[in-house]
Amino acid sequence: VSRSFERTLASIRPADPAAANEAGRILDAKTKPPGSLGRLEDLARRLSAIRGAVPAAPLRPAVVVAAADHGVWIEGVSPYPQAVTSQMLTNFVTGGAAVAVLARQAGARLIVVDAGVRSGPSAADGIRSEVVDGVRGTGNIVAGSAMPRDVAVRLIERGTALVHELADDGVDVVAIGDMGIANTTAASACCAALLPAPVDSVCGPGTGLDDAGVARKACVVRAALAVNGLAGSDVVDPLRVLAAVGGLEIALLVGVILGAAARRMPVVLDGFVTGAAALVAARLAPSAVDAMIAATRSPEPGHALVLERLGLQPLLDLGLRLGEGSAAALALPIVRASVALLLEMATFDHAEVSRA
Amino acid sequence: VSRSFERTLASIRPADPAAANEAGRILDAKTKPPGSLGRLEDLARRLSAIRGAVPAAPLRPAVVVAAADHGVWIEGVSPYPQAVTSQMLTNFVTGGAAVAVLARQAGARLIVVDAGVRSGPSAADGIRSEVVDGVRGTGNIVAGSAMPRDVAVRLIERGTALVHELADDGVDVVAIGDMGIANTTAASACCAALLPAPVDSVCGPGTGLDDAGVARKACVVRAALAVNGLAGSDVVDPLRVLAAVGGLEIALLVGVILGAAARRMPVVLDGFVTGAAALVAARLAPSAVDAMIAATRSPEPGHALVLERLGLQPLLDLGLRLGEGSAAALALPIVRASVALLLEMATFDHAEVSRA
Repeated sequence: VSRSFERTLASIRPADPAAANEAGRILDAKTKPPGSLGRLEDLARRLSAIRGAVPAAPLRPAVVVAAADHGVWIEGVSPYPQAVTSQMLTNFVTGGAAVAVLARQAGARLIVVDAGVRSGPSAADGIRSEVVDGVRGTGNIVAGSAMPRDVAVRLIERGTALVHELADDGVDVVAIGDMGIANTTAASACCAALLPAPVDSVCGPGTGLDDAGVARKACVVRAALAVNGLAGSDVVDPLRVLAAVGGLEIALLVGVILGAAARRMPVVLDGFVTGAAALVAARLAPSAVDAMIAATRSPEPGHALVLERLGLQPLLDLGLRLGEGSAAALALPIVRASVALLLEMATFDHAEVSRA
Repeated sequence: VSRSFERTLASIRPADPAAANEAGRILDAKTKPPGSLGRLEDLARRLSAIRGAVPAAPLRPAVVVAAADHGVWIEGVSPYPQAVTSQMLTNFVTGGAAVAVLARQAGARLIVVDAGVRSGPSAADGIRSEVVDGVRGTGNIVAGSAMPRDVAVRLIERGTALVHELADDGVDVVAIGDMGIANTTAASACCAALLPAPVDSVCGPGTGLDDAGVARKACVVRAALAVNGLAGSDVVDPLRVLAAVGGLEIALLVGVILGAAARRMPVVLDGFVTGAAALVAARLAPSAVDAMIAATRSPEPGHALVLERLGLQPLLDLGLRLGEGSAAALALPIVRASVALLLEMATFDHAEVSRA
């Protein structure tokens, strides 16, 4: 494992309870009954704790969507053709995809990352290439490993480097999303191995399988875990799981999460696939969980297990199951609102409002 | 009952299922698996049905907060001094209150209405006076009725006229909120009578009562219903309930809801007090429910019963219990997002993305 990766892990510190308390003190002086803004107040406290200080200005958001292809697609685990990954990458940068619309609505920059799409889209389109060693698409996980371990590590480092770049550029909250036809199969395998949890409890319809399709997907996941020596074992090495049954975009997102935690920047998670990345990141650096904000609870059954394990309560529960970062982008106005209340609400004293 | 009020009720039509279907057809052509945006898709369909047509442009929002005082305050049902109602009205227009911050965040106009605040704030401050017959504050409902029936009707008409004015001005979605120290007691009485429901099931801590305070509040509500001849009776006349145990701001908000429904404009409800207004409006004109969007589920126990009765599922469940329209304003970006997806997402054909 590389030195920069180890350095990142070592630099991740827990959230700062003093900053949370300071935010709570500020909120309690505002013109409202104590606690009456519910989880918006929790969120303001958490954001302060992550940053190590109460925000002094509105948070500038970015949305990072990482895309890659999956060799396991050939097993019939998605109703969509594999070319859709690449087509959607173009749709992200031309602004017609859901996440592009929602990022615009939230006033967030959208960074579209090619972490290994098979029919490689051109970087000239505004897509950021982070392809490592020409690896475009994972291996079929029912026949072997998804990627070499060093490719996984290097993708993580790429994700971390991207966050440092964004942070240096003034971004201070990052929402993440994924694109990859068949990637809920990879996410299911990662979650089954890392939680650990029975395969049937983490496999769902993804973007549109019927019951027979879900059953077939569970068989594929079971086979992938067996082939990669992960069935029934008590796996302690998250990198091994990621490299064996994960995805290139999942690896990159692990790096984004770790980078955000290292920079004390809140990272807003999307649905099940980003949840798998969060699980890997949490196993690599337990304090990284402190930086995570859960945007949504996906109807995908494994996602509830992931959120429970990470101890995260989602901001939204609107049944979104698209991925792409769509739910994370939709949650950004709530994140921004919690900071605006902290910054802009009047105090009882200043507004001359009587207290209880 | 006046002729304009009757005309409003008669003009309220059910939502248009053809417009909902048209929105669904548009959404199904967008680059996403069908239904994968979950309740954002339901919302886009509902907004189309309310308007009778798929929106052709982003919805322009306004937030209307109505404030009034409550004679029942003297019974010790709130920890706050009554002067806070008037003080908060000033805090709304000077921009330091939570709803003012959240309306700004949502890009919404904030209209602050004095529906009968005791120490009448000056209209010169940007507060819109809709005080009827000089009635500033309700009567104490444990000693008699809250207001004469004709005052209730005229406040409803004022609320309806306000919506017509906003609609003529280009507003096409209205979020509503309330301010009035002790008004969850009035709302509890209205809900107990109209649902009907046991008093204990609708009384909660409001903005900060302890258990003993909640028990006292329930006694007050029971007394108010008995004194006004509403205990145990199967009340069919919602206006009678409103005038007997309601609030001046609740009456005005009933008018806003009815006006919105009459103008085919979605109305975003806030917490428990706006829920009581919605219940009255629904009893006056059952089709008015079609125009209602529930922003939140208040921790106040009566609110869940109101939402269930109205058949509404809230967009947010973040434990907000402030009132003021804060939750309704917080939900506006979600409403706007659902329309943006309808307007701005690319179709499979246009983006040249393959289908399943």
